[in-house]
Amino acid sequence: MYVGRIVAAGRTRSGYNAVAYRVSSRSFPNRMAVDREGTMVIVPRPGFESDLQQSPYISYNALRLAGDWAIATNGSHTDPITEKVNAGLPVRDAMALTLLAMDYEHDAYDTPRIAAAVPLRGDIGWMAVVRRDGLVVREVPLEDGVARYVATYETNDVRDDQSSAFDAGTAAEAALFTVTGGAFAGFEKPVTSVAALANDAGFALGVHVVE
Amino acid sequence: MYVGRIVAAGRTRSGYNAVAYRVSSRSFPNRMAVDREGTMVIVPRPGFESDLQQSPYISYNALRLAGDWAIATNGSHTDPITEKVNAGLPVRDAMALTLLAMDYEHDAYDTPRIAAAVPLRGDIGWMAVVRRDGLVVREVPLEDGVARYVATYETNDVRDDQSSAFDAGTAAEAALFTVTGGAFAGFEKPVTSVAALANDAGFALGVHVVE
Amino acid sequence: MYVGRIVAAGRTRSGYNAVAYRVSSRSFPNRMAVDREGTMVIVPRPGFESDLQQSPYISYNALRLAGDWAIATNGSHTDPITEKVNAGLPVRDAMALTLLAMDYEHDAYDTPRIAAAVPLRGDIGWMAVVRRDGLVVREVPLEDGVARYVATYETNDVRDDQSSAFDAGTAAEAALFTVTGGAFAGFEKPVTSVAALANDAGFALGVHVVE
Amino acid sequence: MYVGRIVAAGRTRSGYNAVAYRVSSRSFPNRMAVDREGTMVIVPRPGFESDLQQSPYISYNALRLAGDWAIATNGSHTDPITEKVNAGLPVRDAMALTLLAMDYEHDAYDTPRIAAAVPLRGDIGWMAVVRRDGLVVREVPLEDGVARYVATYETNDVRDDQSSAFDAGTAAEAALFTVTGGAFAGFEKPVTSVAALANDAGFALGVHVVE
Repeated sequence: MYVGRIVAAGRTRSGYNAVAYRVSSRSFPNRMAVDREGTMVIVPRPGFESDLQQSPYISYNALRLAGDWAIATNGSHTDPITEKVNAGLPVRDAMALTLLAMDYEHDAYDTPRIAAAVPLRGDIGWMAVVRRDGLVVREVPLEDGVARYVATYETNDVRDDQSSAFDAGTAAEAALFTVTGGAFAGFEKPVTSVAALANDAGFALGVHVVE
Repeated sequence: MYVGRIVAAGRTRSGYNAVAYRVSSRSFPNRMAVDREGTMVIVPRPGFESDLQQSPYISYNALRLAGDWAIATNGSHTDPITEKVNAGLPVRDAMALTLLAMDYEHDAYDTPRIAAAVPLRGDIGWMAVVRRDGLVVREVPLEDGVARYVATYETNDVRDDQSSAFDAGTAAEAALFTVTGGAFAGFEKPVTSVAALANDAGFALGVHVVE
Repeated sequence: MYVGRIVAAGRTRSGYNAVAYRVSSRSFPNRMAVDREGTMVIVPRPGFESDLQQSPYISYNALRLAGDWAIATNGSHTDPITEKVNAGLPVRDAMALTLLAMDYEHDAYDTPRIAAAVPLRGDIGWMAVVRRDGLVVREVPLEDGVARYVATYETNDVRDDQSSAFDAGTAAEAALFTVTGGAFAGFEKPVTSVAALANDAGFALGVHVVE
Repeated sequence: MYVGRIVAAGRTRSGYNAVAYRVSSRSFPNRMAVDREGTMVIVPRPGFESDLQQSPYISYNALRLAGDWAIATNGSHTDPITEKVNAGLPVRDAMALTLLAMDYEHDAYDTPRIAAAVPLRGDIGWMAVVRRDGLVVREVPLEDGVARYVATYETNDVRDDQSSAFDAGTAAEAALFTVTGGAFAGFEKPVTSVAALANDAGFALGVHVVE
């Protein structure tokens, strides 16, 4: 099944919270994630920079930290959500305000904007989606060995039963898991992924690039 | 089951759209709905006016028309939603902006704000809820003989399967249906209800007061 | 000059921050402010309760505390602004979001919604107004012996030069000042006023009712 | 005087409405505007594409049309404002919601986001700015031979007296005017500019690139 871009919020079997974002793409597969001073950025692979002129939606900050939160999204809404959480807004309000204002992408697919956030410690994360036909921002439970996900197509609602087994020992493994692990392995056309994984000191960041 | 206040969006068997709102209440049962120049208002029954000093949430405009839309809610958010739709906002945006700003009621129950809207003609209505743990605004399909509903407690998500058989020949019958008909008959402590029912010329408004 | 309702943010000569709200009214002069457990509420005077049925805009919480902030407004937007500040939003965002959603009053005058806030300590307050023709939220400096104000009519912009001399030894005196003091004395048809005045322990609240 | 980026809303002496945007820049002068199918885009000049990696704020859609409105801004907020106006929001609400959510740029200068819009016909335009210390969205009058402007620095409030003489026979001349005409000639470090100028059939678009 092709579900497009995917955000996930979960917890490892040993109890560390993780948030991840995976690019799947039919139209722009020549992309990768890079770490620019703690911000995980989706960019064209070398030689494909001119793709940037074909769509404003293919390069963006995909994962950032804000206080005790790690936030992952499928577009340029990562920045205002992160900045609003830094300014003191609850994650719920930061996601709702930003998604209401920036709305779904006005591309050929009316691609939804999606977002996920997990705290360094604590049992509650947040996931959100804005589509032509709705805006949903909801708490998701964080449970050992489980990840919830929302994708841009098909599974684009926030539901507790949209879940996968999940585990990872490092942030890079968490990024990899969204390509090859659990329910994620069944989703087609993976391109690259990023993740933040909590440890006792803070969040570590990791990248996976599909070869 | 006690589910508190209820909004419903549906369509009669003969194909006319309807929106309704029902007050159920444990704490303030001495209320009724009245029609003030086309706005359906929830007010204390005669002799219970002093209840107004115990809670700011018990008297409000519950149902108003805006262009081709009829809008019902459980609180003072009826007014800004209606005014924003009149100003040109899509119902989705009017509901999301208003519920994000006014948020759940800060009473002893953190009572959610809920809302429903149907167009005079057309197959798509909207329902919404803001809770401590989420904000949901979604399209709901309007189908002959079916009503979708959202309540403040228990069934307070927007889901297509939260539905009841539904029918009414007049707006007053539509209001009555939310007390005695279909799935609504099983919800406890009804107090009063209002409805707007489309006809070939526009919306008619109706009231039911539980004796 | 008749300027309608007025909010003010200032500081006494001895350096204590104050926020105030004054009702002036042509249509509904029979009102007073009362203190209900720390919330200053505008209500009809005894014998004029039926005025409530003529307008939804004449009774509301006018002044509340939220964390280190005291917030005064001319309508029901006091509550969501206060609740959003309590939830963590910066005052700027709380005012902007609430005023954008609730908008000007849809009465015969398109009466603007106005708001003011001061911190227990610190040199920066906030004032805001939403009108048919604009939305303005701005910092205002808090200076010894000066109050800035915004009114619903005539002087309904947020400007540093919309100021008055100001002083008060108690919160009740601060409320009184907005009726008889400085530039405020020139504004017609005062009805009642409320104020919060910082002291070393917190904010004290005061009321003035014009006889 | 260096005022940074500038938006302007005005009307030619012969009565045609115009909106314009001018890039002035100390840090990134090697940019130009191009017309991509009716959207005016700010991009690096050939050979300076790597500037894109130094700041997320230097390339964006700067001017777009939405129904009867032409909208110009200094950043990526052009898109949501345009899309919200297309969805039915009043310009006031589209600007306020978008600027509240996306907020000032989190660069080294906390650069404000600014915006201007004019209708194809009619006497009222809109201008807006969001800064750390405020959010202002206001109507501006459109008068023959006059343009109002808002800049990112120094003159970054929306005021009727922030105006310049203005005239242009073509959209390219309108773009040029913001570099060499009236009050604009005194603003330093011009880089490139774009404009939309109303004619009897619709808006024409024009570009100026400083050599």
